[in-house]
Amino acid sequence: MRKYQAHIYVTLRPSVLDPAGTAVVSGLQHMGYDTVEQVRIGKYIELSLSAQDEDSARQQLNIICDQLLANPVIENYRFDLVEREEVSA
Amino acid sequence: MRKYQAHIYVTLRPSVLDPAGTAVVSGLQHMGYDTVEQVRIGKYIELSLSAQDEDSARQQLNIICDQLLANPVIENYRFDLVEREEVSA
Repeated sequence: MRKYQAHIYVTLRPSVLDPAGTAVVSGLQHMGYDTVEQVRIGKYIELSLSAQDEDSARQQLNIICDQLLANPVIENYRFDLVEREEVSA
Repeated sequence: MRKYQAHIYVTLRPSVLDPAGTAVVSGLQHMGYDTVEQVRIGKYIELSLSAQDEDSARQQLNIICDQLLANPVIENYRFDLVEREEVSA
């Protein structure tokens, strides 16, 4: 088994309104930052897992994202995967 | 004024417990994914802004992150910044 580190980005689909992002834009304008045009807030997940190989890790991650981390109706996701070095003493 | 697109990653400091991440690990184990070792959940923010130059954009983003998007007591942040092309007709 190899060890992998995944960085997962879950974002709202472009057609879905983001009230939290709109609130941040409004808050920034009140603070004087009227140069900010748009804010969209998503999730950033760091996940470490073991798998036989990279294909198997990607397959597991797709299922994990679809079933637990993202809501496919309103969210998209993507991830980067890197193999972690085993630390030798 | 130039237009920039920032991707901001807000993560819990390593010393801070992440109960939501622990709950995801536990949920995955119940679903049969016992290969997942650790999960840390952060925020991923896409922000578009105008600024005179890249230095000024970075300076604004540092203040915005410190004052509004991240809680510096328990969270770290980092961001990428790219200049957006103006769309010409």
